[in-house]
Amino acid sequence: MTTVEESTVVQHPQGAPGPHGYSKDKDSHLKRLRRIEGQIRGLQRMVEEDVYCIDILTQVSASTKALQSFALRLLEEHLRHCVAHAAEEGGPEIDAKVQEATAAIARLLRT
Amino acid sequence: MTTVEESTVVQHPQGAPGPHGYSKDKDSHLKRLRRIEGQIRGLQRMVEEDVYCIDILTQVSASTKALQSFALRLLEEHLRHCVAHAAEEGGPEIDAKVQEATAAIARLLRT
Amino acid sequence: MTTVEESTVVQHPQGAPGPHGYSKDKDSHLKRLRRIEGQIRGLQRMVEEDVYCIDILTQVSASTKALQSFALRLLEEHLRHCVAHAAEEGGPEIDAKVQEATAAIARLLRT
Amino acid sequence: MTTVEESTVVQHPQGAPGPHGYSKDKDSHLKRLRRIEGQIRGLQRMVEEDVYCIDILTQVSASTKALQSFALRLLEEHLRHCVAHAAEEGGPEIDAKVQEATAAIARLLRT
Repeated sequence: MTTVEESTVVQHPQGAPGPHGYSKDKDSHLKRLRRIEGQIRGLQRMVEEDVYCIDILTQVSASTKALQSFALRLLEEHLRHCVAHAAEEGGPEIDAKVQEATAAIARLLRT
Repeated sequence: MTTVEESTVVQHPQGAPGPHGYSKDKDSHLKRLRRIEGQIRGLQRMVEEDVYCIDILTQVSASTKALQSFALRLLEEHLRHCVAHAAEEGGPEIDAKVQEATAAIARLLRT
Repeated sequence: MTTVEESTVVQHPQGAPGPHGYSKDKDSHLKRLRRIEGQIRGLQRMVEEDVYCIDILTQVSASTKALQSFALRLLEEHLRHCVAHAAEEGGPEIDAKVQEATAAIARLLRT
Repeated sequence: MTTVEESTVVQHPQGAPGPHGYSKDKDSHLKRLRRIEGQIRGLQRMVEEDVYCIDILTQVSASTKALQSFALRLLEEHLRHCVAHAAEEGGPEIDAKVQEATAAIARLLRT
Protein backbone atom coordinates (compact mmCIF):
# COMPACT_ATOMS: atom_id res chain seq x y z
CA MET A 1 0.00 0.00 0.00
CA THR A 2 1.29 3.44 -0.84
CA THR A 3 0.91 5.49 2.29
CA VAL A 4 1.23 9.21 2.04
CA GLU A 5 4.57 9.18 3.79
CA GLU A 6 6.11 6.71 1.38
CA SER A 7 4.64 8.25 -1.74
CA THR A 8 7.08 10.10 -3.92
CA VAL A 9 4.69 10.76 -6.76
CA VAL A 10 5.37 13.65 -9.04
CA GLN A 11 2.70 16.28 -8.68
CA HIS A 12 0.95 17.22 -11.90
CA PRO A 13 0.69 20.90 -12.85
CA GLN A 14 -2.60 22.27 -11.59
CA GLY A 15 -5.42 21.54 -13.97
CA ALA A 16 -3.37 19.24 -16.16
CA PRO A 17 -4.93 15.83 -16.66
CA GLY A 18 -3.26 13.32 -14.38
CA PRO A 19 -2.30 9.87 -15.50
CA HIS A 20 -4.95 7.84 -13.72
CA GLY A 21 -8.20 9.02 -15.21
CA TYR A 22 -9.65 10.45 -12.05
CA SER A 23 -8.09 13.88 -12.28
CA LYS A 24 -11.02 15.60 -13.92
CA ASP A 25 -13.16 14.45 -11.00
CA LYS A 26 -10.56 15.55 -8.46
CA ASP A 27 -12.64 18.40 -7.07
CA SER A 28 -15.67 16.22 -6.58
CA HIS A 29 -13.49 13.54 -4.90
CA LEU A 30 -11.89 16.08 -2.58
CA LYS A 31 -15.27 17.52 -1.66
CA ARG A 32 -16.54 14.03 -0.75
CA LEU A 33 -13.44 13.29 1.32
CA ARG A 34 -13.67 16.58 3.19
CA ARG A 35 -17.29 15.78 4.02
CA ILE A 36 -16.20 12.38 5.35
CA GLU A 37 -13.44 14.05 7.38
CA GLY A 38 -16.15 16.28 8.88
CA GLN A 39 -18.20 13.20 9.75
CA ILE A 40 -15.21 11.65 11.53
CA ARG A 41 -14.71 14.84 13.53
CA GLY A 42 -18.43 14.75 14.30
CA LEU A 43 -17.93 11.23 15.68
CA GLN A 44 -15.20 12.55 17.98
CA ARG A 45 -17.54 15.22 19.34
CA MET A 46 -20.26 12.60 19.85
CA VAL A 47 -17.88 10.43 21.90
CA GLU A 48 -16.69 13.45 23.90
CA GLU A 49 -20.29 14.43 24.65
CA ASP A 50 -21.31 10.90 25.68
CA VAL A 51 -23.91 10.64 22.96
CA TYR A 52 -25.92 7.40 23.06
CA CYS A 53 -23.94 4.48 21.49
CA ILE A 54 -26.64 3.58 18.99
CA ASP A 55 -26.65 7.11 17.56
CA ILE A 56 -22.87 6.94 17.20
CA LEU A 57 -23.16 3.59 15.41
CA THR A 58 -25.68 5.13 13.00
CA GLN A 59 -23.17 7.86 12.20
CA VAL A 60 -20.42 5.24 11.70
CA SER A 61 -22.68 3.45 9.17
CA ALA A 62 -23.20 6.73 7.32
CA SER A 63 -19.44 7.39 7.17
CA THR A 64 -18.69 3.85 6.00
CA LYS A 65 -21.33 4.21 3.29
CA ALA A 66 -19.80 7.52 2.19
CA LEU A 67 -16.35 5.88 1.98
CA GLN A 68 -17.78 3.03 -0.08
CA SER A 69 -19.45 5.50 -2.47
CA PHE A 70 -16.14 7.28 -2.91
CA ALA A 71 -14.45 3.94 -3.61
CA LEU A 72 -17.09 3.00 -6.19
CA ARG A 73 -16.63 6.29 -8.04
CA LEU A 74 -12.88 5.79 -8.13
CA LEU A 75 -13.26 2.20 -9.24
CA GLU A 76 -15.63 3.16 -12.06
CA GLU A 77 -13.12 5.70 -13.37
CA HIS A 78 -10.34 3.16 -13.02
CA LEU A 79 -12.25 0.58 -15.06
CA ARG A 80 -13.17 3.16 -17.68
CA HIS A 81 -9.67 4.57 -18.06
CA CYS A 82 -6.94 2.18 -16.95
CA VAL A 83 -8.60 -1.16 -17.62
CA ALA A 84 -10.26 -0.10 -20.86
CA HIS A 85 -7.03 1.57 -21.96
CA ALA A 86 -5.06 -1.64 -21.41
CA ALA A 87 -7.68 -3.52 -23.44
CA GLU A 88 -7.36 -1.09 -26.34
CA GLU A 89 -3.59 -1.44 -26.28
CA GLY A 90 -3.94 -5.21 -26.45
CA GLY A 91 -1.25 -7.52 -25.16
CA PRO A 92 -0.91 -9.23 -21.79
CA GLU A 93 -1.30 -6.02 -19.74
CA ILE A 94 -5.09 -6.39 -19.58
CA ASP A 95 -4.90 -9.62 -17.55
CA ALA A 96 -2.72 -7.95 -14.91
CA LYS A 97 -5.02 -4.92 -14.77
CA VAL A 98 -8.16 -7.02 -14.36
CA GLN A 99 -6.55 -9.13 -11.66
CA GLU A 100 -5.41 -6.02 -9.82
CA ALA A 101 -8.89 -4.45 -10.00
CA THR A 102 -10.54 -7.67 -8.79
CA ALA A 103 -8.15 -7.87 -5.84
CA ALA A 104 -9.07 -4.28 -4.92
CA ILE A 105 -12.78 -5.14 -5.10
CA ALA A 106 -12.16 -8.20 -2.90
CA ARG A 107 -10.50 -5.96 -0.29
CA LEU A 108 -13.50 -3.62 -0.33
CA LEU A 109 -15.88 -6.57 0.08
CA ARG A 110 -13.95 -8.07 2.97
CA THR A 111 -14.12 -4.96 5.09
CA MET B 1 -29.88 9.87 13.96
CA THR B 2 -28.55 12.39 16.40
CA THR B 3 -26.26 14.65 14.44
CA VAL B 4 -23.85 16.86 16.27
CA GLU B 5 -25.86 19.95 15.47
CA GLU B 6 -29.10 18.55 16.83
CA SER B 7 -27.57 17.02 19.92
CA THR B 8 -28.32 18.79 23.11
CA VAL B 9 -26.73 16.23 25.39
CA VAL B 10 -25.55 17.35 28.77
CA GLN B 11 -21.80 17.17 28.96
CA HIS B 12 -20.48 15.07 31.82
CA PRO B 13 -17.86 16.52 34.15
CA GLN B 14 -14.42 15.53 32.91
CA GLY B 15 -13.51 12.05 34.05
CA ALA B 16 -16.93 11.25 35.45
CA PRO B 17 -18.41 8.04 34.18
CA GLY B 18 -20.95 8.79 31.47
CA PRO B 19 -24.28 7.03 31.18
CA HIS B 20 -23.60 4.81 28.19
CA GLY B 21 -20.89 2.49 29.38
CA TYR B 22 -18.26 3.63 26.92
CA SER B 23 -16.92 6.54 28.90
CA LYS B 24 -14.06 4.71 30.52
CA ASP B 25 -12.86 3.80 27.02
CA LYS B 26 -13.33 7.34 25.78
CA ASP B 27 -9.62 8.04 25.37
CA SER B 28 -9.06 4.89 23.38
CA HIS B 29 -12.09 5.69 21.19
CA LEU B 30 -10.90 9.23 20.56
CA LYS B 31 -7.42 7.99 19.71
CA ARG B 32 -8.89 5.57 17.14
CA LEU B 33 -11.08 8.25 15.62
CA ARG B 34 -8.19 10.72 15.35
CA ARG B 35 -6.19 8.04 13.56
CA ILE B 36 -9.09 7.50 11.13
CA GLU B 37 -9.34 11.28 10.61
CA GLY B 38 -5.64 11.22 9.72
CA GLN B 39 -6.29 8.43 7.21
CA ILE B 40 -9.05 10.47 5.56
CA ARG B 41 -6.73 13.45 5.28
CA GLY B 42 -4.14 11.08 3.83
CA LEU B 43 -6.70 10.08 1.19
CA GLN B 44 -7.15 13.74 0.26
CA ARG B 45 -3.40 14.14 -0.22
CA MET B 46 -3.34 10.96 -2.34
CA VAL B 47 -6.08 12.35 -4.62
CA GLU B 48 -4.32 15.72 -4.84
CA GLU B 49 -1.04 14.00 -5.78
CA ASP B 50 -2.69 11.77 -8.42
CA VAL B 51 -1.67 8.59 -6.64
CA TYR B 52 -2.61 5.41 -8.51
CA CYS B 53 -6.33 4.54 -8.00
CA ILE B 54 -5.66 1.04 -6.72
CA ASP B 55 -3.43 2.37 -3.94
CA ILE B 56 -6.15 4.83 -2.96
CA LEU B 57 -8.71 2.00 -2.89
CA THR B 58 -6.40 0.01 -0.60
CA GLN B 59 -6.29 2.97 1.77
CA VAL B 60 -10.10 3.27 1.63
CA SER B 61 -10.37 -0.41 2.63
CA ALA B 62 -8.04 0.24 5.58
CA SER B 63 -10.12 3.22 6.73
CA THR B 64 -13.38 1.30 6.40
CA LYS B 65 -11.90 -1.54 8.41
CA ALA B 66 -10.77 0.90 11.11
CA LEU B 67 -14.29 2.38 11.27
CA GLN B 68 -15.78 -1.12 11.59
CA SER B 69 -13.37 -1.96 14.42
CA PHE B 70 -14.40 1.20 16.23
CA ALA B 71 -18.06 0.26 15.74
CA LEU B 72 -17.47 -3.26 17.09
CA ARG B 73 -15.80 -1.89 20.23
CA LEU B 74 -18.69 0.47 20.83
CA LEU B 75 -21.21 -2.28 20.18
CA GLU B 76 -19.49 -4.65 22.61
CA GLU B 77 -19.61 -2.03 25.36
CA HIS B 78 -23.22 -1.28 24.52
CA LEU B 79 -24.21 -4.95 24.82
CA ARG B 80 -22.27 -5.30 28.06
CA HIS B 81 -23.67 -2.20 29.69
CA CYS B 82 -26.98 -1.09 28.23
CA VAL B 83 -28.39 -4.40 27.06
CA ALA B 84 -27.16 -6.40 30.02
CA HIS B 85 -28.35 -3.65 32.38
CA ALA B 86 -31.86 -3.78 30.90
CA ALA B 87 -31.85 -7.56 31.35
CA GLU B 88 -30.87 -7.25 35.00
CA GLU B 89 -33.64 -4.73 35.56
CA GLY B 90 -36.13 -7.12 34.00
CA GLY B 91 -39.34 -5.93 32.40
CA PRO B 92 -40.15 -5.14 28.78
CA GLU B 93 -37.18 -2.78 28.30
CA ILE B 94 -34.87 -5.63 27.23
CA ASP B 95 -36.91 -6.39 24.08
CA ALA B 96 -36.66 -2.79 22.92
CA LYS B 97 -32.91 -2.70 23.64
CA VAL B 98 -32.23 -5.93 21.75
CA GLN B 99 -34.30 -4.76 18.78
CA GLU B 100 -32.46 -1.45 18.72
CA ALA B 101 -29.05 -3.16 18.86
CA THR B 102 -30.01 -5.59 16.08
CA ALA B 103 -31.17 -2.72 13.87
CA ALA B 104 -27.80 -1.00 14.42
CA ILE B 105 -25.97 -4.21 13.48
CA ALA B 106 -28.15 -4.50 10.34
CA ARG B 107 -27.15 -0.95 9.35
CA LEU B 108 -23.47 -1.82 9.79
CA LEU B 109 -23.89 -4.98 7.68
CA ARG B 110 -25.71 -3.19 4.88
CA THR B 111 -22.92 -0.70 4.28
CA MET C 1 -16.74 -23.96 14.04
CA THR C 2 -19.13 -26.80 14.67
CA THR C 3 -19.69 -28.43 11.33
CA VAL C 4 -22.59 -30.76 10.91
CA GLU C 5 -20.31 -33.77 10.83
CA GLU C 6 -18.63 -32.91 14.12
CA SER C 7 -21.81 -32.00 15.91
CA THR C 8 -22.99 -34.49 18.46
CA VAL C 9 -25.80 -32.38 19.82
CA VAL C 10 -28.67 -34.11 21.49
CA GLN C 11 -31.85 -33.66 19.52
CA HIS C 12 -34.71 -32.13 21.44
CA PRO C 13 -38.12 -33.81 21.43
CA GLN C 14 -40.21 -32.34 18.66
CA GLY C 15 -41.92 -29.17 19.75
CA ALA C 16 -40.07 -28.91 23.03
CA PRO C 17 -38.36 -25.60 23.54
CA GLY C 18 -34.68 -26.01 22.76
CA PRO C 19 -31.93 -24.52 24.83
CA HIS C 20 -30.88 -21.74 22.51
CA GLY C 21 -33.93 -19.55 22.27
CA TYR C 22 -34.47 -19.96 18.54
CA SER C 23 -36.51 -23.14 18.67
CA LYS C 24 -39.91 -21.49 18.57
CA ASP C 25 -38.85 -19.79 15.34
CA LYS C 26 -37.46 -23.01 13.92
CA ASP C 27 -40.11 -23.33 11.21
CA SER C 28 -39.60 -19.79 10.01
CA HIS C 29 -35.80 -20.32 9.98
CA LEU C 30 -36.11 -23.55 8.02
CA LYS C 31 -38.45 -21.93 5.52
CA ARG C 32 -35.93 -19.12 4.96
CA LEU C 33 -33.07 -21.57 4.54
CA ARG C 34 -35.01 -23.70 2.06
CA ARG C 35 -35.72 -20.58 0.04
CA ILE C 36 -32.00 -19.75 0.04
CA GLU C 37 -31.21 -23.34 -1.02
CA GLY C 38 -33.62 -22.82 -3.93
CA GLN C 39 -31.79 -19.60 -4.87
CA ILE C 40 -28.45 -21.45 -4.90
CA ARG C 41 -29.91 -24.13 -7.16
CA GLY C 42 -31.26 -21.32 -9.34
CA LEU C 43 -27.70 -19.99 -9.59
CA GLN C 44 -26.52 -23.40 -10.82
CA ARG C 45 -29.17 -23.40 -13.54
CA MET C 46 -28.16 -19.87 -14.54
CA VAL C 47 -24.52 -20.93 -14.92
CA GLU C 48 -25.53 -24.04 -16.87
CA GLU C 49 -27.67 -21.94 -19.21
CA ASP C 50 -24.95 -19.32 -19.77
CA VAL C 51 -27.05 -16.53 -18.35
CA TYR C 52 -25.39 -13.09 -18.54
CA CYS C 53 -22.82 -12.63 -15.72
CA ILE C 54 -24.38 -9.44 -14.41
CA ASP C 55 -27.74 -11.16 -13.91
CA ILE C 56 -26.00 -13.96 -12.02
CA LEU C 57 -24.23 -11.39 -9.82
CA THR C 58 -27.58 -9.78 -9.04
CA GLN C 59 -28.90 -13.16 -7.91
CA VAL C 60 -25.76 -13.69 -5.77
CA SER C 61 -26.42 -10.34 -4.05
CA ALA C 62 -30.01 -11.42 -3.34
CA SER C 63 -28.83 -14.72 -1.82
CA THR C 64 -26.19 -13.01 0.29
CA LYS C 65 -28.79 -10.55 1.55
CA ALA C 66 -31.13 -13.43 2.43
CA LEU C 67 -28.32 -15.15 4.37
CA GLN C 68 -27.58 -11.93 6.25
CA SER C 69 -31.27 -11.52 7.15
CA PHE C 70 -31.31 -15.06 8.50
CA ALA C 71 -28.17 -14.30 10.54
CA LEU C 72 -29.71 -11.12 11.96
CA ARG C 73 -32.83 -12.99 13.08
CA LEU C 74 -30.73 -15.62 14.78
CA LEU C 75 -28.55 -12.99 16.40
CA GLU C 76 -31.54 -11.07 17.72
CA GLU C 77 -32.90 -14.22 19.36
CA HIS C 78 -29.48 -15.01 20.74
CA LEU C 79 -29.17 -11.58 22.33
CA ARG C 80 -32.69 -11.77 23.72
CA HIS C 81 -32.32 -15.24 25.18
CA CYS C 82 -28.72 -16.26 25.82
CA VAL C 83 -27.13 -12.88 26.47
CA ALA C 84 -30.06 -11.46 28.44
CA HIS C 85 -30.32 -14.75 30.37
CA ALA C 86 -26.66 -14.55 31.37
CA ALA C 87 -27.22 -10.96 32.51
CA GLU C 88 -30.16 -11.96 34.68
CA GLU C 89 -28.14 -14.75 36.26
CA GLY C 90 -25.40 -12.27 37.08
CA GLY C 91 -21.81 -13.34 37.53
CA PRO C 92 -18.92 -13.37 35.07
CA GLU C 93 -20.80 -15.36 32.37
CA ILE C 94 -22.19 -12.19 30.78
CA ASP C 95 -18.73 -10.93 29.74
CA ALA C 96 -17.96 -14.17 27.94
CA LYS C 97 -21.37 -14.14 26.21
CA VAL C 98 -21.00 -10.55 25.02
CA GLN C 99 -17.49 -11.20 23.75
CA GLU C 100 -18.67 -14.29 21.89
CA ALA C 101 -21.59 -12.42 20.29
CA THR C 102 -19.32 -9.53 19.26
CA ALA C 103 -16.86 -11.94 17.65
CA ALA C 104 -19.74 -13.49 15.68
CA ILE C 105 -20.86 -10.03 14.52
CA ALA C 106 -17.27 -9.25 13.48
CA ARG C 107 -17.20 -12.42 11.36
CA LEU C 108 -20.46 -11.40 9.66
CA LEU C 109 -19.07 -7.92 8.97
CA ARG C 110 -15.81 -9.21 7.53
CA THR C 111 -17.49 -11.32 4.88
CA MET D 1 -33.00 -9.33 -12.56
CA THR D 2 -33.30 -12.33 -14.76
CA THR D 3 -34.66 -15.09 -12.58
CA VAL D 4 -34.42 -18.63 -13.75
CA GLU D 5 -38.13 -18.80 -14.47
CA GLU D 6 -38.10 -15.75 -16.71
CA SER D 7 -34.92 -16.66 -18.52
CA THR D 8 -35.36 -17.80 -22.06
CA VAL D 9 -31.67 -18.04 -22.88
CA VAL D 10 -30.67 -20.38 -25.63
CA GLN D 11 -28.63 -23.22 -24.25
CA HIS D 12 -25.24 -23.66 -25.88
CA PRO D 13 -24.21 -27.07 -27.20
CA GLN D 14 -22.28 -28.90 -24.51
CA GLY D 15 -18.66 -27.85 -24.45
CA ALA D 16 -19.10 -25.00 -26.86
CA PRO D 17 -17.80 -21.68 -25.60
CA GLY D 18 -20.70 -19.60 -24.32
CA PRO D 19 -21.05 -15.92 -25.03
CA HIS D 20 -20.20 -14.51 -21.63
CA GLY D 21 -16.63 -15.59 -21.05
CA TYR D 22 -17.32 -17.78 -18.05
CA SER D 23 -18.19 -20.94 -19.91
CA LYS D 24 -14.75 -22.48 -19.77
CA ASP D 25 -14.89 -22.15 -15.98
CA LYS D 26 -18.40 -23.57 -15.84
CA ASP D 27 -17.39 -26.79 -14.13
CA SER D 28 -15.44 -24.98 -11.44
CA HIS D 29 -18.38 -22.57 -10.90
CA LEU D 30 -20.87 -25.42 -10.63
CA LYS D 31 -18.64 -27.26 -8.18
CA ARG D 32 -18.45 -24.15 -5.99
CA LEU D 33 -22.20 -23.63 -6.11
CA ARG D 34 -22.92 -27.26 -5.23
CA ARG D 35 -20.60 -26.90 -2.24
CA ILE D 36 -22.51 -23.78 -1.15
CA GLU D 37 -25.81 -25.66 -1.61
CA GLY D 38 -24.39 -28.33 0.70
CA GLN D 39 -23.51 -25.66 3.26
CA ILE D 40 -27.08 -24.32 3.17
CA ARG D 41 -28.46 -27.81 3.72
CA GLY D 42 -25.96 -28.14 6.58
CA LEU D 43 -27.45 -24.98 8.09
CA GLN D 44 -30.91 -26.54 7.94
CA ARG D 45 -29.67 -29.60 9.83
CA MET D 46 -28.01 -27.36 12.41
CA VAL D 47 -31.29 -25.51 13.02
CA GLU D 48 -33.22 -28.79 13.20
CA GLU D 49 -30.74 -30.17 15.73
CA ASP D 50 -30.81 -27.01 17.90
CA VAL D 51 -27.11 -26.36 17.43
CA TYR D 52 -25.82 -23.37 19.40
CA CYS D 53 -26.66 -20.07 17.63
CA ILE D 54 -23.09 -18.85 17.52
CA ASP D 55 -21.96 -21.98 15.67
CA ILE D 56 -24.76 -21.46 13.15
CA LEU D 57 -23.69 -17.84 12.66
CA THR D 58 -20.13 -19.00 12.01
CA GLN D 59 -21.44 -21.32 9.29
CA VAL D 60 -23.50 -18.47 7.81
CA SER D 61 -20.33 -16.35 7.60
CA ALA D 62 -18.56 -19.19 5.79
CA SER D 63 -21.40 -19.54 3.27
CA THR D 64 -21.54 -15.79 2.67
CA LYS D 65 -17.79 -15.75 2.10
CA ALA D 66 -18.11 -18.64 -0.37
CA LEU D 67 -20.83 -16.75 -2.27
CA GLN D 68 -18.65 -13.64 -2.38
CA SER D 69 -15.71 -15.66 -3.73
CA PHE D 70 -17.94 -17.08 -6.45
CA ALA D 71 -19.09 -13.54 -7.30
CA LEU D 72 -15.51 -12.27 -7.49
CA ARG D 73 -14.52 -15.06 -9.89
CA LEU D 74 -17.47 -14.29 -12.12
CA LEU D 75 -16.75 -10.57 -11.97
CA GLU D 76 -13.10 -11.08 -12.90
CA GLU D 77 -14.10 -13.09 -15.96
CA HIS D 78 -16.71 -10.50 -16.85
CA LEU D 79 -14.15 -7.69 -16.71
CA ARG D 80 -11.64 -9.72 -18.71
CA HIS D 81 -14.08 -10.76 -21.41
CA CYS D 82 -17.08 -8.47 -21.71
CA VAL D 83 -15.61 -5.19 -20.51
CA ALA D 84 -12.25 -5.65 -22.22
CA HIS D 85 -14.03 -6.81 -25.38
CA ALA D 86 -16.15 -3.66 -25.45
CA ALA D 87 -12.98 -1.58 -25.02
CA GLU D 88 -11.30 -3.30 -27.96
CA GLU D 89 -14.36 -2.70 -30.12
CA GLY D 90 -14.25 0.99 -29.25
CA GLY D 91 -17.33 3.16 -29.37
CA PRO D 92 -19.79 4.13 -26.66
CA GLU D 93 -20.46 0.53 -25.53
CA ILE D 94 -17.58 0.59 -23.03
CA ASP D 95 -19.22 3.30 -20.89
CA ALA D 96 -22.41 1.28 -20.55
CA LYS D 97 -20.45 -1.88 -19.70
CA VAL D 98 -18.36 -0.13 -17.04
CA GLN D 99 -21.44 1.47 -15.49
CA GLU D 100 -23.23 -1.88 -15.43
CA ALA D 101 -20.25 -3.62 -13.79
CA THR D 102 -19.91 -0.85 -11.19
CA ALA D 103 -23.60 -1.12 -10.33
CA ALA D 104 -23.17 -4.88 -9.82
CA ILE D 105 -20.17 -4.27 -7.53
CA ALA D 106 -22.23 -1.71 -5.58
CA ARG D 107 -24.97 -4.32 -5.05
CA LEU D 108 -22.40 -6.81 -3.77
CA LEU D 109 -20.96 -4.21 -1.39
CA ARG D 110 -24.36 -3.20 -0.02
CA THR D 111 -25.27 -6.71 1.07
